[in-house]
Amino acid sequence: MQFQLTSEFIELIEQLIANKDGNALKETLKEFHFADIAELLEELNHDEATYIIKLLGSDITSEALMELDDDFRERILENLSPQEIADELDEMDTDDAADIIAELDEDIQQKVIEKIEDEEHAADIVDLLRYDEDSAGGLMAKELVRVKETWTVAGCVREMRRQAENVTRVHSIYVTNKEGKLTGRLSLKDLLTAAEKTKISDVFIPKVDYVTVHTEGEEVARIMQKYDLEAIPVVDEQGILVGRITIDDIVDFIKEEAEKDYQMAAGISQTVEADDSVWQLTRARLPWLVLGLFGGLGSVYIMQGFEEALEKFPILFFFTPLIAAMAGNVGVQSSAIIVQGLANDNVKGSLFNRLVKEVGLALINGTALGLLVIIFGFIVGQNQLVSITIAISMLSVIIVAALIGTFVPIILHKRGIDPAIATGPFITTSNDIFGIFLFFYISKVVLGF
Amino acid sequence: MQFQLTSEFIELIEQLIANKDGNALKETLKEFHFADIAELLEELNHDEATYIIKLLGSDITSEALMELDDDFRERILENLSPQEIADELDEMDTDDAADIIAELDEDIQQKVIEKIEDEEHAADIVDLLRYDEDSAGGLMAKELVRVKETWTVAGCVREMRRQAENVTRVHSIYVTNKEGKLTGRLSLKDLLTAAEKTKISDVFIPKVDYVTVHTEGEEVARIMQKYDLEAIPVVDEQGILVGRITIDDIVDFIKEEAEKDYQMAAGISQTVEADDSVWQLTRARLPWLVLGLFGGLGSVYIMQGFEEALEKFPILFFFTPLIAAMAGNVGVQSSAIIVQGLANDNVKGSLFNRLVKEVGLALINGTALGLLVIIFGFIVGQNQLVSITIAISMLSVIIVAALIGTFVPIILHKRGIDPAIATGPFITTSNDIFGIFLFFYISKVVLGF
Repeated sequence: MQFQLTSEFIELIEQLIANKDGNALKETLKEFHFADIAELLEELNHDEATYIIKLLGSDITSEALMELDDDFRERILENLSPQEIADELDEMDTDDAADIIAELDEDIQQKVIEKIEDEEHAADIVDLLRYDEDSAGGLMAKELVRVKETWTVAGCVREMRRQAENVTRVHSIYVTNKEGKLTGRLSLKDLLTAAEKTKISDVFIPKVDYVTVHTEGEEVARIMQKYDLEAIPVVDEQGILVGRITIDDIVDFIKEEAEKDYQMAAGISQTVEADDSVWQLTRARLPWLVLGLFGGLGSVYIMQGFEEALEKFPILFFFTPLIAAMAGNVGVQSSAIIVQGLANDNVKGSLFNRLVKEVGLALINGTALGLLVIIFGFIVGQNQLVSITIAISMLSVIIVAALIGTFVPIILHKRGIDPAIATGPFITTSNDIFGIFLFFYISKVVLGF
Repeated sequence: MQFQLTSEFIELIEQLIANKDGNALKETLKEFHFADIAELLEELNHDEATYIIKLLGSDITSEALMELDDDFRERILENLSPQEIADELDEMDTDDAADIIAELDEDIQQKVIEKIEDEEHAADIVDLLRYDEDSAGGLMAKELVRVKETWTVAGCVREMRRQAENVTRVHSIYVTNKEGKLTGRLSLKDLLTAAEKTKISDVFIPKVDYVTVHTEGEEVARIMQKYDLEAIPVVDEQGILVGRITIDDIVDFIKEEAEKDYQMAAGISQTVEADDSVWQLTRARLPWLVLGLFGGLGSVYIMQGFEEALEKFPILFFFTPLIAAMAGNVGVQSSAIIVQGLANDNVKGSLFNRLVKEVGLALINGTALGLLVIIFGFIVGQNQLVSITIAISMLSVIIVAALIGTFVPIILHKRGIDPAIATGPFITTSNDIFGIFLFFYISKVVLGF
């Protein structure tokens, strides 16, 4: 089942597009999965991709469009008329269609919505545009199968067949009361095994997990993962069933969240991809580098304050990058574990216990590394008091770095700030400054310069 | 629907356990979701948790056990007899049961398997133990609904009802030929809408995505995400349908993978959690710190080679940590973007174009940062030639760091090595050394000491 795009195949497609040989293209691509079409489109330029989008039926291309990178899709949509965009949206689930509309310029949005053939579909899309894109309202689709408590199993199957036409995958059937309030659910399996005349109210499961339109995406992801749900219904403020979120949308969300934290830890301040423009990449990378630069200039200032050590103990200045690196590495390790622990909700126990643990850990690591420094000093014939001073300062720096790395994220989290910002360059830079100061201060006390 | 464990509630439960008041406990917990029970168990000690596991029915506790942290579950299982463990496994899906068995000591494994009541279930579990845990074989469950091409829709529904009892959620019905080879699939929706006497061979979808037992978990995750699949069938070497993997198992897998990369970037060499023991945390953290230490000692050696600069340009030594930090930050940024791009398969285009782009990006960032250094020098009244030298060296260091950060992961990836190891401390440390050397070398050439 492996699909592999070869450069020969891409060339063939480009040739067919150049020749405007629509029939041959249709024939070549007809067995392709939409995800593979999307992969192909991204290898072409915007005009070639637009040609294919216009050529193939919107049942395929609407799905392929959703798989494309945002920027690439935007460029293609610019080449399409409002009518052509509306045709694509007609085939999409409401949640996807709303995402696309939100990407368009405001003056085009209205024109596109007016051209959508299915009025109910259009109204659903407009309704979804109200919600913040990271809230349950912004993530949900309007397509779902709903039945009323008062129906029989037979009536329910009839109604379900009708509704199911618009629903790509039926996970659960949601049960509401007369007012439309969510009261329970019914599995397809239950429906298959119940007698035809049974009332829904006798067989449905009154316990159902749900979220409201305002629940944050992160919380939806947490609930769906915790309870192993494949779909979750969404209700409005009055408890009326208004939509559902399926696990595939949440998988993307979980992945994006994990990638965002990873990038934050790597000092990239907004979500970028390897293939983004130099300008986008600069905007994402420069801010943290400037922070690092100011931190470095702070270190310069600190070291100037210990200038008198230059004559008697120049070796201390050779060791400064090592101390800074250790402070940075230990800080990043500590903060990464805590940030991940906070995200997964498994940082438990008292702060005091955590303090004892972090100090213990830093003592073990610091002592081991300190011994290596002393052994190194012995081998290269370094003044032993200097070696011991460096080892002791390093141990202290490691302890302080571990404490900063652990407690800064915890404090940020308690204040409702995303602790992920306190990893990477932030922790590295602040630990560099603290570490270098501590190193020279301890050295000054012990060596007395 | 929010479930919130309060400390009062935990105390109540602990009190009930101390009083051995089984009935009150059962009554209190009877409406609880297994995921909430798991959350409660993790707040108790092992003996208390064991008491609850033994008290409640294995239909609830088998699911709760699966949600527990590995270490915690291991401790509880140690308190259970082979018969009690077997009872839990009887309720589990085969994939979960196999995971549990694999965690037990070898001498207990055999005893537990012998006690499993359902022999077919036991045989399926033993069969799954053969596969590597990160392969499709290790991820799949044996529970699935299968029908033969030759059956009618009515016969299929009958057979399905029988099979569905063992299958928690029916995603797709898989169609096989007489020999059991996978030939297609059928959606529940299709089955609901087809006439009773229709032959399966007339309505099934012959196009079905699948993986083999040896496909790696990462690849399974990629395929399921790309094609938006909620379940995928697994076949053996002969194409015989042997199991299926559902998206919920893959969600966990994706999350674990993302966390592993994140931890790797943070210099933590094996998956640890905030609540692991000091010893586990030390083992995960010390190796990279030792690497960092050796890198730092390398820098000491390099700077000793430029000792003559101490007299005339001591300021260079004050700037060394800044240069090292820049080299490290730029390297981590570049590598993180590439590692993520490689993982998501969106690093495209020629190596030469990427080279041009990275150099361009480094030039922009480096020039901006260099100007800041010159401005800083001007403000503090630093020798201007020295400021310019530092700015130029920093620019060069940033370019080299970006190239190392970009191309080391690409080269590793091409050689089949996980590029994620080339982020974090690895890149920081090597860039520190290269950066410091380049800085002093360029300074020596320009300033002539």
